Amino acid sequence: MAYRFTHRRRVQFSETDMAGIMHFSNFFRFMESTEHAFYRSMGVSVHPFRPNETGTDPQVGWPRGHASADYRLPLHFEEEVEIELLVEEVKSKTVALYFNFWKNPDDESEKILAATGRFTAVCVSFDEESRRMKAVAIPDEWRDKLDAAPEGLIPTEVS
Amino acid sequence: MAYRFTHRRRVQFSETDMAGIMHFSNFFRFMESTEHAFYRSMGVSVHPFRPNETGTDPQVGWPRGHASADYRLPLHFEEEVEIELLVEEVKSKTVALYFNFWKNPDDESEKILAATGRFTAVCVSFDEESRRMKAVAIPDEWRDKLDAAPEGLIPTEVS
Amino acid sequence: MAYRFTHRRRVQFSETDMAGIMHFSNFFRFMESTEHAFYRSMGVSVHPFRPNETGTDPQVGWPRGHASADYRLPLHFEEEVEIELLVEEVKSKTVALYFNFWKNPDDESEKILAATGRFTAVCVSFDEESRRMKAVAIPDEWRDKLDAAPEGLIPTEVS
Amino acid sequence: MAYRFTHRRRVQFSETDMAGIMHFSNFFRFMESTEHAFYRSMGVSVHPFRPNETGTDPQVGWPRGHASADYRLPLHFEEEVEIELLVEEVKSKTVALYFNFWKNPDDESEKILAATGRFTAVCVSFDEESRRMKAVAIPDEWRDKLDAAPEGLIPTEVS
Repeated sequence: MAYRFTHRRRVQFSETDMAGIMHFSNFFRFMESTEHAFYRSMGVSVHPFRPNETGTDPQVGWPRGHASADYRLPLHFEEEVEIELLVEEVKSKTVALYFNFWKNPDDESEKILAATGRFTAVCVSFDEESRRMKAVAIPDEWRDKLDAAPEGLIPTEVS
Repeated sequence: MAYRFTHRRRVQFSETDMAGIMHFSNFFRFMESTEHAFYRSMGVSVHPFRPNETGTDPQVGWPRGHASADYRLPLHFEEEVEIELLVEEVKSKTVALYFNFWKNPDDESEKILAATGRFTAVCVSFDEESRRMKAVAIPDEWRDKLDAAPEGLIPTEVS
Repeated sequence: MAYRFTHRRRVQFSETDMAGIMHFSNFFRFMESTEHAFYRSMGVSVHPFRPNETGTDPQVGWPRGHASADYRLPLHFEEEVEIELLVEEVKSKTVALYFNFWKNPDDESEKILAATGRFTAVCVSFDEESRRMKAVAIPDEWRDKLDAAPEGLIPTEVS
Repeated sequence: MAYRFTHRRRVQFSETDMAGIMHFSNFFRFMESTEHAFYRSMGVSVHPFRPNETGTDPQVGWPRGHASADYRLPLHFEEEVEIELLVEEVKSKTVALYFNFWKNPDDESEKILAATGRFTAVCVSFDEESRRMKAVAIPDEWRDKLDAAPEGLIPTEVS
């Protein structure tokens, strides 16, 4: 069972904007990369709406019900940032994730929070009949691997 | 003085993902397009960190302090969505904006909310000495044009 | 039968990079938007790998075999550009498209070429058995609407 | 002196499109990431239009004059691809780069070419007077590190 995971990404030129910093929308893409790396580290993968290898069950997807970010310091081109994922809550059909973006991750004395963020991801499968996504119970394969972070690691104020 | 603005965008192929719907991060780009179209409609423009045409004052930029979205229904390729901007609050150095994403905007009986979102944008100028962005008071040129939406138009629950 | 189409797009903030201009990769997204608007204008639409409304035939997709661009002048934030599409060649399974990016499209005396580009799009359907895309003959529904531009409109030098 | 460099990237969810594969425009972003990683590996960095640390000379930028890609096989979500950069030609103000995208890079017998690409990058500095980019001779700091690949490594047919 895991509730914490860290992932590194370097800011690419195409992720900057004319203000000279990473475009704010790309923080959400970095959070999602981290979420998927977290799932990969546990041996599960997000392949929405495709039958799995045995052809029996459709695999699940995780569209977002909510996403938010609070920005403190800009990220710059070529800067390497550490994204820390914390599992905030696991419900029957949803998972809430919390993220810290750490600047200068290799220097403990200079490490500083650039941003925080939150996702609520809804577990869905694709209903062939209605041709729509439908919220479903999180499969045990996923649920057994997820644990909520202990109290105190995630700020309680809603953002 | 304005507190409401609407803008249309059609979902492009490159804005979809392998789940067959618009990627959730692109809702933030649609909100920003709407924000900038709103400012253009009032004759002001966001050209961060560049001297203005008279060469006197640096123009202001509007990085985000906070951004959030709540998703209800997916948007699909080629779908035209109406993004409704409402000014939530104007403070000395920040503006809070609220957004509704309307599906089927041309058919009043089918019009339905796909998502809502919020931005807090911080007014900054570029400080040449420190080579950093610095929060500044919103220039009168902008402030005189902005008005907060009347109560009741924006839900009060924090998201 | 059509061989020419024009489409307008305004450069968005998220499409710029830290050099203060539209990121070069976004020219390809603008070309694709224009291609899809061209198809929409003829009443056909790109919905790859989905059965059509009558549920009989899979619709076709158009992945690219080749894409190129030659850049002359940068595009800036909020600039409106006219993208001119010309059908270069229609073969049995491929369509070659040529694009001109026109700056200052509203002023005939100031209109100037910012970039040109080329696509070769391959007509494919999704083969359920192999679960792969397979090149197929362009359906008559599409072919009947496409015409190659007369000689002289498209430069012959390969780029 | 270097003429070859390899770089790995994993395809992210936000880089896929509704056809279930990496959007063709993102190959250009992967090429650019590789180009910048190549320059970083040589101790130089692309910080366009900013004075360097000693405050004397403006650093150079590398906008593209030409970019092209030829696609053979799609890339899928979570797939790790090896991008091989080869320096094709170094002229006084431009550098031509060639790229191979290798699927299954860890298995020599399964390694296969997914795509190839080309950039011509123009060395520019920012002219304060005209407020425009101006092509300049490649600084020795860069030129001394760049070497053209030996004949035979890059196909000669123009694409």
